[in-house]
Amino acid sequence: MFKDSLNSISPYKPGKSIESIQKISGKTDIIKLASNENPLGPAVDISAIACHSERYPDYTTHPFIPQLARHLGVDPTQLILGNGSDEILQMVALACISPGDEILSSSCTFSEYKFVAQITGATYVEAPMKDHTVHVESIINAITKQTKIIFIANPNNPTGTIITHDDVVQILNAASSTTLVVLDEAYAEYATHPDYTNAIDLIAQYPNLMVTRTFSKIYGLAALRVGYGMAQAPIIQGIQKVRQPFNVNGLALEAASMALKNHAFVERSLEINRLGHSFLRNALRPLDGHIPPSQANFLFIDFKTIHADALCDALIQRGVIVRSMVGFGEPTAIRVTVGTENQNQRFITELFECLKQL
Amino acid sequence: MFKDSLNSISPYKPGKSIESIQKISGKTDIIKLASNENPLGPAVDISAIACHSERYPDYTTHPFIPQLARHLGVDPTQLILGNGSDEILQMVALACISPGDEILSSSCTFSEYKFVAQITGATYVEAPMKDHTVHVESIINAITKQTKIIFIANPNNPTGTIITHDDVVQILNAASSTTLVVLDEAYAEYATHPDYTNAIDLIAQYPNLMVTRTFSKIYGLAALRVGYGMAQAPIIQGIQKVRQPFNVNGLALEAASMALKNHAFVERSLEINRLGHSFLRNALRPLDGHIPPSQANFLFIDFKTIHADALCDALIQRGVIVRSMVGFGEPTAIRVTVGTENQNQRFITELFECLKQL
Repeated sequence: MFKDSLNSISPYKPGKSIESIQKISGKTDIIKLASNENPLGPAVDISAIACHSERYPDYTTHPFIPQLARHLGVDPTQLILGNGSDEILQMVALACISPGDEILSSSCTFSEYKFVAQITGATYVEAPMKDHTVHVESIINAITKQTKIIFIANPNNPTGTIITHDDVVQILNAASSTTLVVLDEAYAEYATHPDYTNAIDLIAQYPNLMVTRTFSKIYGLAALRVGYGMAQAPIIQGIQKVRQPFNVNGLALEAASMALKNHAFVERSLEINRLGHSFLRNALRPLDGHIPPSQANFLFIDFKTIHADALCDALIQRGVIVRSMVGFGEPTAIRVTVGTENQNQRFITELFECLKQL
Repeated sequence: MFKDSLNSISPYKPGKSIESIQKISGKTDIIKLASNENPLGPAVDISAIACHSERYPDYTTHPFIPQLARHLGVDPTQLILGNGSDEILQMVALACISPGDEILSSSCTFSEYKFVAQITGATYVEAPMKDHTVHVESIINAITKQTKIIFIANPNNPTGTIITHDDVVQILNAASSTTLVVLDEAYAEYATHPDYTNAIDLIAQYPNLMVTRTFSKIYGLAALRVGYGMAQAPIIQGIQKVRQPFNVNGLALEAASMALKNHAFVERSLEINRLGHSFLRNALRPLDGHIPPSQANFLFIDFKTIHADALCDALIQRGVIVRSMVGFGEPTAIRVTVGTENQNQRFITELFECLKQL
């Protein structure tokens, strides 16, 4: 019944939810630092949003797209919305991939790239990472005539590291004009490094570049599913052809529109993230671990000798949910979301307790 | 950059929204009977729903799937949720279609079937309709060795007609065991005909049947995007492999869960639909038009001599949005959603005014 390539797809393992751990453990003081969600909550109170729930969402004429375009400094024809940026990545693959095509990305990166390759029948090629950072030379060396899409997460999930604006230019210059380079900037708003990519400038210059972002992170709307892609208009026009007419729900359109105006929330989120990074790095200094420089709202911590699954299980016993990196080919590493001050302190306390016992 | 088959995709034309017509016309008393939405509104007040908007939706452990399974009398392993049933149809095609495969459906039916064929590169085969009803014999005659999926809308959108339980059995018996028969029952709850399909019985008997339904119609949650598919567990397991991990948003899970408990709303919706059908049929009797028997919340009206686009434009000038069937190959027909008593009366009044002038 099913196509042959379906067998190769292994199911995605999301971060465990607070409710599911409550059910198992009976504990009530559980914190989740496993999915890089905003510890301050959402940028908008959705119960205050008026929405005709019975009506189909009006993607085409909703004022959110022009508003977002003004916010970014692009034309509305340069934007496409998705049911989370996950769906943008899927639409890109649906629009571009024919049998025999390759999708290229880095090792130890967001699992969605491999997933969309598998569901569209593309061959997925992984260039090796270097120092927990996307390795530009390896990416460029792995480009073939069959490379149809290159996915680069910047900052990279799960390591938090970035490649610079010039690095991205190198990749764009090496890619053929019929290869779509997709820069996944889900964590862009957190990046403060002076050499971080200027997506708007790059889009103006490169007709084969698409940049994706999301309302799930800094705007705290992961439950509602809004992501967007920006590129020159012809790219957007092509990808629009595979978009389901009602892909973004009506409440999400309203919520994202309101969230975009909440500058104070974004500022508070950045500040709490900055403080959290600094606290966690200090607290983790005594450990014999390695933490690559993160420009996102999470840290990748390699403990070198401790098995990550065992550590994550022990942390869950103590009510702290973080993510094991075993599935990313990093058996001794975890990824932890930067939380509120209390959450970070709790994580550190429980972590040190666990490490004593492991 | 894009795959060749993309050129063949023509964009979907959704029903025009009230807001877009307000903008154009300046009118404020606009009614929309163009998208088969519930005229009573939603089954639940979403502003009363508590939802952690910042958290990723927890598809796997959310209590909604077990609840829906109990409601339907199936096992939770027999259900899959989608971002609307649109996405279920897309997932079915993504899971099954390889190059060279065919997708078979009827002429004058829901445009989504052709769309998912186009985005997955399947050849789309249309069997001719008879008397505005899916023609079982034509469907069966059009089955080939390449037929991978058969989509049947029952009741059919846009004609409202049904095929019987025995008709569906005939199709299932004619289809090979590796052909997935998808019965799209988006309007099932409205169907009162004694010979209408019993989906649960059929699923128990046929391992190659999937039935899809939605919360967009009788539950009035079109804005939130929740649809579901039910089938024997192995089918669901296969299709789960192509499901995006966070495809159904968190608020939609909560809302659908609450809506399912609102039996009184469903009863009221059925009653208003029954009354509306009866009023509209009586009022339309003087016209020289043809209306196939509808088991859904809309009527298909063929005026035989009047061009549907012109009629729809004239109705919009008067503040009534209905759908032209020109795009469905029916140049003299419109589809109108059964509304509230006031809406139905308004439609009839404006329609007769328009007909005088056309």
